[in-house]
Amino acid sequence: MTHQAATALDVRLRLLAERPDDAAALVVPDVVIGSPRSAADLEAFAAGCDVVTFDHELVDGAALERLERAGHRLHPTAATVAIAQDKLAQRTRFAAAGLPVPAFRAVRGVEDLLAFGDDQGWPIMAKAVRGGYDGRGVWRLDGERAAFDLWSSFAHTGVDLLAEAHVPLDREIAVLIARRPGGEVAPYAVVETVQRDGICRELLVPAAIPPAVAAAAGALARQAAEAVAVVGLLALELFVVGDRLLVNEIAARPHNSGHWTIEGAVTSQFEQHLRAILDWPLGAPDLAAPAVATVNLLGAADGRDPRSGLTLALTDPAVRVHLYGKSPRPGRKLGHVTVLAGSLAEARSRAGTAATHLVGGHHVVQGER
Amino acid sequence: MTHQAATALDVRLRLLAERPDDAAALVVPDVVIGSPRSAADLEAFAAGCDVVTFDHELVDGAALERLERAGHRLHPTAATVAIAQDKLAQRTRFAAAGLPVPAFRAVRGVEDLLAFGDDQGWPIMAKAVRGGYDGRGVWRLDGERAAFDLWSSFAHTGVDLLAEAHVPLDREIAVLIARRPGGEVAPYAVVETVQRDGICRELLVPAAIPPAVAAAAGALARQAAEAVAVVGLLALELFVVGDRLLVNEIAARPHNSGHWTIEGAVTSQFEQHLRAILDWPLGAPDLAAPAVATVNLLGAADGRDPRSGLTLALTDPAVRVHLYGKSPRPGRKLGHVTVLAGSLAEARSRAGTAATHLVGGHHVVQGER
Repeated sequence: MTHQAATALDVRLRLLAERPDDAAALVVPDVVIGSPRSAADLEAFAAGCDVVTFDHELVDGAALERLERAGHRLHPTAATVAIAQDKLAQRTRFAAAGLPVPAFRAVRGVEDLLAFGDDQGWPIMAKAVRGGYDGRGVWRLDGERAAFDLWSSFAHTGVDLLAEAHVPLDREIAVLIARRPGGEVAPYAVVETVQRDGICRELLVPAAIPPAVAAAAGALARQAAEAVAVVGLLALELFVVGDRLLVNEIAARPHNSGHWTIEGAVTSQFEQHLRAILDWPLGAPDLAAPAVATVNLLGAADGRDPRSGLTLALTDPAVRVHLYGKSPRPGRKLGHVTVLAGSLAEARSRAGTAATHLVGGHHVVQGER
Repeated sequence: MTHQAATALDVRLRLLAERPDDAAALVVPDVVIGSPRSAADLEAFAAGCDVVTFDHELVDGAALERLERAGHRLHPTAATVAIAQDKLAQRTRFAAAGLPVPAFRAVRGVEDLLAFGDDQGWPIMAKAVRGGYDGRGVWRLDGERAAFDLWSSFAHTGVDLLAEAHVPLDREIAVLIARRPGGEVAPYAVVETVQRDGICRELLVPAAIPPAVAAAAGALARQAAEAVAVVGLLALELFVVGDRLLVNEIAARPHNSGHWTIEGAVTSQFEQHLRAILDWPLGAPDLAAPAVATVNLLGAADGRDPRSGLTLALTDPAVRVHLYGKSPRPGRKLGHVTVLAGSLAEARSRAGTAATHLVGGHHVVQGER
């Protein structure tokens, strides 16, 4: 999707891909095969780039620092990526900057889990500090027994854990914000990220929150962008608890929570990211319609190819389908569907119907919103 | 631009390019180097394609017919491409189908020009039947002397000529329409194509014409699509003379007059073309804003690279820039700029300012509209 934006602006993209059949490698001509966890591969790749940027965080951090010391321009910087890679570093940095975060504690042994549970009351959350996504690397611990079980299965893996208060959240939202090297920012409208089983299923814009809460979320995005000195896109994920906001986590790159911007905003997050990292003027983040709904396409349990339902999904002429060219696997994000409409109810319903045609199942999460 | 649309729908595009540095070859991974005027190259290329389509008409027509006889699927078909390649064939076909066309006559010798001028009154227009574009291959003949001069410079070239009445046109408009193999069509709103020196400079949507004229233009587009049995996009260019419409010419592919649809319509002409040739349901062609203006970026006389003015152009956050990656040459179409706004005056003004930043000059053609 970044290549689509780069094409319009005549920005030549070079892609570091692990395999020639990676989804992005199927659509970008200039592909270097290599591993983002190999210092040698990163160095060879960066040699031909004016700016190095990221579409995930699974990159060797020490190698990034070496690239910067060798004079390569990285946006976001190695320091920002290091924070985005590490949930504990995020909590620490944001707490220090005065942003509201859930109560948390680094876990060096099971006694830290137990003490935190005693202190906060059970249940508590345990999270892998690095590498978790889509509900993986997150555990709800209902009591001491669960803490011991988790620790016994985890202590040998070398993965660091973080304990966190269990927050009785009402909903989750996100704010996408772009920041240029000089500090200029452009925040998008607040998006509600509807989750099921820890996986984002729907994006709803504008989020159904009071204007004051939306304004507070925008202000937090500005503070967060400044606190981690991001250059490029930052996705700030927030918990809404009553009229309070708590910072959940960040991604320092174009993010799934911003896929609605491709049609739903004047400037897509992908173009905005390119403009920010190239230090070009930012585009307008304004909404392109009163309501935008995006439904993620998660691979069906039967492993069907969403292309088999494409013509049916396209019978609704307003439906915008994005397929990522990934081989279908149950639960894998294979694409998304966006609908712009006069109301969120209509946009959700039409996007959900199209998603059902593509991957089966029901896609509009129940409940009054 | 077709690759951008194909990427979203997971349609794998294979490109036949004459040179590895052709603009499209810079952004599409699967490129076959060859000539669209070589039967052997076309055959080798078509062997790997489910559907063969076109982004220009400079293709060997006999080779296309052979491909179809060998069982390849061409959309548009060889017969439709043959008409789109030939202005005389267009006039003949549309006149036979009852569409309004300027008076015309095939030219086999200078006596045909003279007889046509005597019959219609001077001036008359002479046009190359094949290969003209952007004002090339079109001559206004003010009298017999001009007719003799043109013939003496042209008779030896083997290019066929067509004589046509000089039409006192008020403006030029176009209608983009997509047609599926079964005949289903989706026409876009009428676009005014503002010309200077035979080159389209601006696209304005909606065109400043009475609703009845717009409706008549839409009806002509449906008739024209049927008359040439197009599959895919058809651009129908029309002259407006008072409240009368005359068919100028067609393109049977995504066309410059449809570049405004990328942001200005729910479905871009590029996606719509893919959907039509794949016989998928067509997308909504509806306008995405009250007014859309697109300004073509023609290479400046000083040969400057439009990228040198890009950051200045982007200071207007609503401006959408499309650069084609072509090497700059005076007069060459190097890209376009689109602005969506509440009024056409505002959209034109902002797009024109951005175009001036990119290629210099003045881009909003003067005159009351």
